[in-house]
Amino acid sequence: MTKKPLCEDPIKHIVWKGDRLRVLDQRYLPRTVRFVTCRNAAAVAKATKDMVLRGAPLIGCAAAYGMALAARRNKLNDVVAAEPVLRRARPTAVNLMHALDHMLAVARSGSEATLSKRMSSAAVKYYKDDLGFNARMAKLGARLLKKGSNVMTHCNAGALATAGIGTALGMIRAGWLSGKISHVYTCETRPYLQGARLTLWELMKAGIPATLITDNMAAHLMKTKKIDAVIVGSDRIAANADVCNKIGTYGLAILAKHHGIPFYVVAPSTTVDFSTKHGKDIPIEERSSREVVEIFGRKIAPKGAKAFHFGFDVTPHALVTAIVTEKGVVSPANGAKLWKVLDPS
Amino acid sequence: MTKKPLCEDPIKHIVWKGDRLRVLDQRYLPRTVRFVTCRNAAAVAKATKDMVLRGAPLIGCAAAYGMALAARRNKLNDVVAAEPVLRRARPTAVNLMHALDHMLAVARSGSEATLSKRMSSAAVKYYKDDLGFNARMAKLGARLLKKGSNVMTHCNAGALATAGIGTALGMIRAGWLSGKISHVYTCETRPYLQGARLTLWELMKAGIPATLITDNMAAHLMKTKKIDAVIVGSDRIAANADVCNKIGTYGLAILAKHHGIPFYVVAPSTTVDFSTKHGKDIPIEERSSREVVEIFGRKIAPKGAKAFHFGFDVTPHALVTAIVTEKGVVSPANGAKLWKVLDPS
Repeated sequence: MTKKPLCEDPIKHIVWKGDRLRVLDQRYLPRTVRFVTCRNAAAVAKATKDMVLRGAPLIGCAAAYGMALAARRNKLNDVVAAEPVLRRARPTAVNLMHALDHMLAVARSGSEATLSKRMSSAAVKYYKDDLGFNARMAKLGARLLKKGSNVMTHCNAGALATAGIGTALGMIRAGWLSGKISHVYTCETRPYLQGARLTLWELMKAGIPATLITDNMAAHLMKTKKIDAVIVGSDRIAANADVCNKIGTYGLAILAKHHGIPFYVVAPSTTVDFSTKHGKDIPIEERSSREVVEIFGRKIAPKGAKAFHFGFDVTPHALVTAIVTEKGVVSPANGAKLWKVLDPS
Repeated sequence: MTKKPLCEDPIKHIVWKGDRLRVLDQRYLPRTVRFVTCRNAAAVAKATKDMVLRGAPLIGCAAAYGMALAARRNKLNDVVAAEPVLRRARPTAVNLMHALDHMLAVARSGSEATLSKRMSSAAVKYYKDDLGFNARMAKLGARLLKKGSNVMTHCNAGALATAGIGTALGMIRAGWLSGKISHVYTCETRPYLQGARLTLWELMKAGIPATLITDNMAAHLMKTKKIDAVIVGSDRIAANADVCNKIGTYGLAILAKHHGIPFYVVAPSTTVDFSTKHGKDIPIEERSSREVVEIFGRKIAPKGAKAFHFGFDVTPHALVTAIVTEKGVVSPANGAKLWKVLDPS
């Protein structure tokens, strides 16, 4: 029972049809299951920017398919033109840049006659690789947990954020299947509520016992309930092992440290950006303040209110117990160990 | 300009009419300014329980008026019967218990013939005392700040939570009037969004520059912006100076400590409960999980989702830089200093 589910996509939320990409619109979950069909790279870029799809590894997979769609006419120029359109869609997750670099190299590696075929195969392989990475990280990560753990997670680093079973939620799924995990506490993750809308949806579908909390209850739970680990994903990991992830992650890491709780980051090697030395060099996406002052179109603050909307924050590597990648576990989480385990040279 | 506003209620949100109490319904702010009229103690208890009014000192004032309403027929039995009804309305804020003990003592201190008159006068005095406490705390608190400070606050400890200008927001108002405060960052405070709905409304009405953040952005702001102080109110302070306040306060205190930022608690002496030794002995109100899984009646989580709804948490005194009371500043925040400054003997 444990092995098969880990290598599959449990949700079918990104389906390649050769001439189009079918994507589950995550903005309407869990109320409505609605799909968006992208027939060209611009449509994939728009879906990414508008958060129809989100999650660093999934953004990478979608971009790879976007490049394959751009190659449909077997013209290298189309692919070259599509690349910056996709690159501008979201600034923080490096998987997007990684996927585009890879697909551009594939485009340039052969003749135009075979361009569409090569790009389609490469995108499918990119997707399948992510599926495999998920399964591998889940197994490596679950080994770090002790039996019967209560864990806390933030945002959605699940199937919906990846091709397969997810990064943080993949580890949680594997941990639950092997009896390592008893209960999951899910931070709702304002302003987009990915924890409430997406993570809880995935956990309930999988039959994993879970309880929702508001983000500001995390410290109280760490003090009053037995929390054995915090497990999150990442949008970009710098060369020094600083971890950029959804806003709120840095705070959780400080709270975990204060309570002596291990803090695990689960991310494929495609999330690591060796060209960015320090966490502070990672661009933090600032989104519209409207997404903070309105919930489902209803204002929660007075007219004219100012608000910040930082999409991400950076957790210094000193607060991270281990980074779980498909190539191995990076612990202690520092630049030297990261380089050694990932061996990018 | 600085002195007069500090001694007044800037909002007129609780108005005693002799035979009734007019209360601003805070649940509909900032969209709608709507009032509720309470003609007896049961109506005051219901308004308190349903959060028409909230904030520890205001709950105390409303309870005092509720007891005065119960005394209208000049029957001591009516007052004695009303007391437990009001006491059950909210379990955490000790100001409620304090006000009821005080009003019961007033009721028993004279003849039934003068009961209504005495109770009405005592309730008005209880309210006016709170007004004065606010002004005094505001002045004492503002002195602790350095010129041009950027401060962060949580929930609403403003005029809407008290009789007068507020506790934490009173200090902020005084600080702004005297040039000590440049900017206020307001945590939205899920699930009730008191920070977004109430605190921002008060600050904008007063012309104080303020920016809203989601609760999970606090750590990122502490790292990347200059935050000079965190200022909050309290619902109950134990004899050892542990501070119970709105859920999320404990986490903010840990984050402030981590970043070397002073953490101030502003609360009148009526908030201090010397009969409760430790913070862990304070009862933490658990409210309906529905208030977490629904926002404005719309579900944010899948059907059947479980959620916690803790209304408060406890911050150990070691994380508190100073407690500002109307009787003086308690710093370091510990039991001995608290006893010395408040002198309850």
